[in-house]
Amino acid sequence: MENKIVKVGLIGLGTVGGGTLEVLAKNSEVIAKRAVKIEVSRICNLDLAYTEQRIKELGLEGTTTATTNFRDLIDDPEIDIVIELIGGIHPALEMVSAALAAGKSVVTANKDLVASHGAELFELADNNGVDFFFEASVAGGIPILKALKDSLAANNIVEIMGIVNGTTNYILSQMTSNGADFEPCLKRAQELGYAEANPTNDIEGFDAARKMAILASIAYNSNITEDMVYVEGITNITKFDIAYADQLGYAVKLVGLAKPAPGDENSIAVCVYPLMIAKEHPLASVNDVFNAVFVEGDALGQSMFYGRGAGSLPTASAVAGDVITAAKKIINNTRGVSGIRFFENKKVLPITECINKYYIRLMVQDKPKVLAQIADAFATSDISMDSVIQKRVTDSGLAEIVLITHSVKEANLQEALERLQHLACVDCVASMIRVNGD
Amino acid sequence: MENKIVKVGLIGLGTVGGGTLEVLAKNSEVIAKRAVKIEVSRICNLDLAYTEQRIKELGLEGTTTATTNFRDLIDDPEIDIVIELIGGIHPALEMVSAALAAGKSVVTANKDLVASHGAELFELADNNGVDFFFEASVAGGIPILKALKDSLAANNIVEIMGIVNGTTNYILSQMTSNGADFEPCLKRAQELGYAEANPTNDIEGFDAARKMAILASIAYNSNITEDMVYVEGITNITKFDIAYADQLGYAVKLVGLAKPAPGDENSIAVCVYPLMIAKEHPLASVNDVFNAVFVEGDALGQSMFYGRGAGSLPTASAVAGDVITAAKKIINNTRGVSGIRFFENKKVLPITECINKYYIRLMVQDKPKVLAQIADAFATSDISMDSVIQKRVTDSGLAEIVLITHSVKEANLQEALERLQHLACVDCVASMIRVNGD
Repeated sequence: MENKIVKVGLIGLGTVGGGTLEVLAKNSEVIAKRAVKIEVSRICNLDLAYTEQRIKELGLEGTTTATTNFRDLIDDPEIDIVIELIGGIHPALEMVSAALAAGKSVVTANKDLVASHGAELFELADNNGVDFFFEASVAGGIPILKALKDSLAANNIVEIMGIVNGTTNYILSQMTSNGADFEPCLKRAQELGYAEANPTNDIEGFDAARKMAILASIAYNSNITEDMVYVEGITNITKFDIAYADQLGYAVKLVGLAKPAPGDENSIAVCVYPLMIAKEHPLASVNDVFNAVFVEGDALGQSMFYGRGAGSLPTASAVAGDVITAAKKIINNTRGVSGIRFFENKKVLPITECINKYYIRLMVQDKPKVLAQIADAFATSDISMDSVIQKRVTDSGLAEIVLITHSVKEANLQEALERLQHLACVDCVASMIRVNGD
Repeated sequence: MENKIVKVGLIGLGTVGGGTLEVLAKNSEVIAKRAVKIEVSRICNLDLAYTEQRIKELGLEGTTTATTNFRDLIDDPEIDIVIELIGGIHPALEMVSAALAAGKSVVTANKDLVASHGAELFELADNNGVDFFFEASVAGGIPILKALKDSLAANNIVEIMGIVNGTTNYILSQMTSNGADFEPCLKRAQELGYAEANPTNDIEGFDAARKMAILASIAYNSNITEDMVYVEGITNITKFDIAYADQLGYAVKLVGLAKPAPGDENSIAVCVYPLMIAKEHPLASVNDVFNAVFVEGDALGQSMFYGRGAGSLPTASAVAGDVITAAKKIINNTRGVSGIRFFENKKVLPITECINKYYIRLMVQDKPKVLAQIADAFATSDISMDSVIQKRVTDSGLAEIVLITHSVKEANLQEALERLQHLACVDCVASMIRVNGD
């Protein structure tokens, strides 16, 4: 096995592509000794001069050529694995499909692609007897997909909770440690390169939703796509809410959840939203750009996988790990034999059917009997209180009431909030944040 | 693949054996859909009546028979996988060897066996074209071995730090949260079943040393056995040291370390000892019986794998995961093709050559110029101070000095402590604890 070389074509030489090329080149010796010799023989990238420069810098002139046409990789019969690292749906979908159809295994970090077209690509890989691996698409370097699929295969998954977006975790960590507002923390994240110029995908939770679609698909053996995931971002979280959460013993995190619906074995909940997590929970101390996926299995119990969810080299670590696995399967003539199986057809529960505790912040008239009216409005929807903080806000003449409800179906909560907004004593419902726990 | 059945023989029906039988029986349907149908067809256990009772309780009478003779499993041509869960070296070694020699793949949770006879068993498995898996031998349910071997295969491992013994982590957590002494916390751990009647293996660090030998072997592709691991237990840790550590910003944990020796590519450090870890470090908040393995890879960066390191079902989760992997390889006709490779021959650095910061607690005469004499004794061995706390201890007439050194080779530290013990002003060196960090 040591003498064989597996040739690889790389599409994309941006942050992750550049990191992958670097890791495969610099650690090629130990990779060959541990598994198999891997050679990136062709690189497809729009900037030909830059590609040639990187090939030279890494001393790969003897083995690696540059091209701007991905067909040069697909048509090369010596290339057995194609790594797609350009991101986005088009033309990545066409490139990956062409590679699979040409009998090449594919490794990608492309969450958009897997979360929207996963099922058809798994099928295409199956039909062509090749592998399609995408560990790097969720939580960067953290090997959570392989763990879920292989090591935890004997478990029914009780719950997955993931901090799977580093940008929002950085912003919320900064808001927490500095008592700062959302906007300056976003700006700081942009300055540091943790957030993009157009931060929508991150701060509105869409990026996290894609990753949760992929995690839920594997955990529950069902085809869950990103459009099925309920999603709320962090733009409405204020420093006041974070301070109250702290006072009540919670940290606020943008969390993706996936879990079976209680009492309905054909449904699962898959959502992304800001969540108040008790400070003792392992996820509560996952800060800054770090990611972590908390998994509870019926046998395993609670576990957590922590690390860097983005960045050139951490993501490259996962891509290169997949390339090594794919290369070993080529050498051992076993590719395409243990793909993802969607033998279930779980429905995703509407958010209104989900059950949670809720943190509510209300601005109210500072008058007698206001609290009684509010409690009454909740009670009408069968909602009882876990804790209440009332604070007089002097300058505006309004008082602030912060409360946490007991567990209740979200439909009831929405009904109660609607009722509250029509009470004369209520100025506004300033915030609603879901709270983890029973 | 769905129609085939892989038959398994189970040796041992204690805590982990019972859990494994339960997980494989209760989750058999989802395991079959995800991978392959697995049937425990024979169970070898000394108490035949108990085995038959468990078979009946789990409704396995139609498929599973009990025996007290492990040869019945070895000689059964229908059994392709043997699970060894009796623990200890003998007769487990003979049983596992016989199973491998008979062409059966073996799954075990036996850290004693792997940490002492791993290399010969890997070779035996290789020579017989079968698999030998042992995920459950380190950190129970946490899938760290597979992650290290497969997902992180493209990384040079910069450092492994593991809290891999739940008993000592529970005792230290209790000493920390209650300000209690070691003995009552050990007693409490014994009452709760977290510590054995004879707790030596846990509290002296031997159990952790076995796990570190296994982790280091995989990470550094070298045959590291438990006798090569430097080990110190937690019996000398006092509540005073834990309180000072807290004051200085550290938690005290029993940690196993494995890392390359700086400037010597042929050596690695592999040790187990109590370590002061900065409270911001992810390992510092791993409490009670939980385990966690912190891994830094040159590409991946920092990562941590957290979960239950012991217990019936968590350990069974790892055993069953290995059984599923072994069964898939049997169905796909690929067993024995990607074993552990010891292509390196790393030496283990003597503890005297290791470099650390050190926490030292001294009882000294309460007289002028004592601190100057002590600083001088350290300076003679080229050791400088990072921080010093001096406290007058009224009732005994002695003062207590607590200090943390800068990084220094342990040989120098030992030389300085020897010198200190001979100073007239020093009553005793009460404690020495290594401190994590540069």
